[in-house]
Amino acid sequence: MRQFSVATQRSEEFVDITGQVAQALAESGLKEGAVLVYSPHTTAGVTINEGADPDVKRDMLEHLRSLVPNSADFRHAEGNSDAHIKTSLMGPSQLIPVSGGSLLLGTWQKIYLCEFDGPRRRSVLVQALAAGD
Amino acid sequence: MRQFSVATQRSEEFVDITGQVAQALAESGLKEGAVLVYSPHTTAGVTINEGADPDVKRDMLEHLRSLVPNSADFRHAEGNSDAHIKTSLMGPSQLIPVSGGSLLLGTWQKIYLCEFDGPRRRSVLVQALAAGD
Amino acid sequence: MRQFSVATQRSEEFVDITGQVAQALAESGLKEGAVLVYSPHTTAGVTINEGADPDVKRDMLEHLRSLVPNSADFRHAEGNSDAHIKTSLMGPSQLIPVSGGSLLLGTWQKIYLCEFDGPRRRSVLVQALAAGD
Repeated sequence: MRQFSVATQRSEEFVDITGQVAQALAESGLKEGAVLVYSPHTTAGVTINEGADPDVKRDMLEHLRSLVPNSADFRHAEGNSDAHIKTSLMGPSQLIPVSGGSLLLGTWQKIYLCEFDGPRRRSVLVQALAAGD
Repeated sequence: MRQFSVATQRSEEFVDITGQVAQALAESGLKEGAVLVYSPHTTAGVTINEGADPDVKRDMLEHLRSLVPNSADFRHAEGNSDAHIKTSLMGPSQLIPVSGGSLLLGTWQKIYLCEFDGPRRRSVLVQALAAGD
Repeated sequence: MRQFSVATQRSEEFVDITGQVAQALAESGLKEGAVLVYSPHTTAGVTINEGADPDVKRDMLEHLRSLVPNSADFRHAEGNSDAHIKTSLMGPSQLIPVSGGSLLLGTWQKIYLCEFDGPRRRSVLVQALAAGD
């Protein structure tokens, strides 16, 4: 089990954590299997999507905001139910296959920590899992 | 592989299954790795979110209902396409890292079975996966 | 690690890949653990849902299109931000428990490659993970 932290800068943003995950994988020594990237938070998730054009991140965040506006009729006293819902829509984790000691991400894929209620210091857990074949 | 069942009480609800998952993990004897919590159903998923304030669950269910109303123009004859869609939005499973024999859930995280077409008896499968580092 | 490819036929469709995943699992020789089904693409994901009535797939695709219309106010120059968002909503992968060498899918569950920007040739990675109990 490895862990790193990310200081997010905005109320909502996608932070590319691919480099930190690759580093944690290298430290684990795993050659074949998969790597679990896990957010132990309830208002920040993890997704995988395009890293080349920053407008993709922007469009994703903007559209999630329109699907789950924080002005909706929510009861949760902290007033951040929108952040909780967006976290479950993206999911709290992603699992990436590993072969030859490398993350098998596609050409355009990056791993993002999805901040929905920042800025905050967030933890990310990285667990290497063994292949079974 | 362990398995337990949950008798849901309503047409839609989030049932906290964290205790049953922790019990299944203890029985497995796994010390390092991750635990897969899997719903073998197509109208009930699994998510992880806040457990402290019950209004979070309420707001999540309510907002999912507004995003996927069962009054939408669906063709599926059983009339529960909304439940199928919400299941895929939450996902049929979650994977939680394990270290020292414990679930590494964050302070506020609970594991929920998401019932979207109840009440029914639901099964949950729990598979312990080995660390590779 | 196994891999197969799928030639999708439409701009958007859910392609049942359960047979190819079962075949990859058989080749891996895994008896106990789980199988990771991973899309290395940013406009095609993986989900699990009902396979009996084709109207479920149709209703899911149609409703996702209404939640994320490609006419939304997007900036990404390629014009397919809707496909990126739908991919993150479904997720790029699914993890299915394995016991006795078989996928523990529920009675009605099928594994779908979710094409959101086709038709294209897509790759699917299948990684067998070892049980830890």
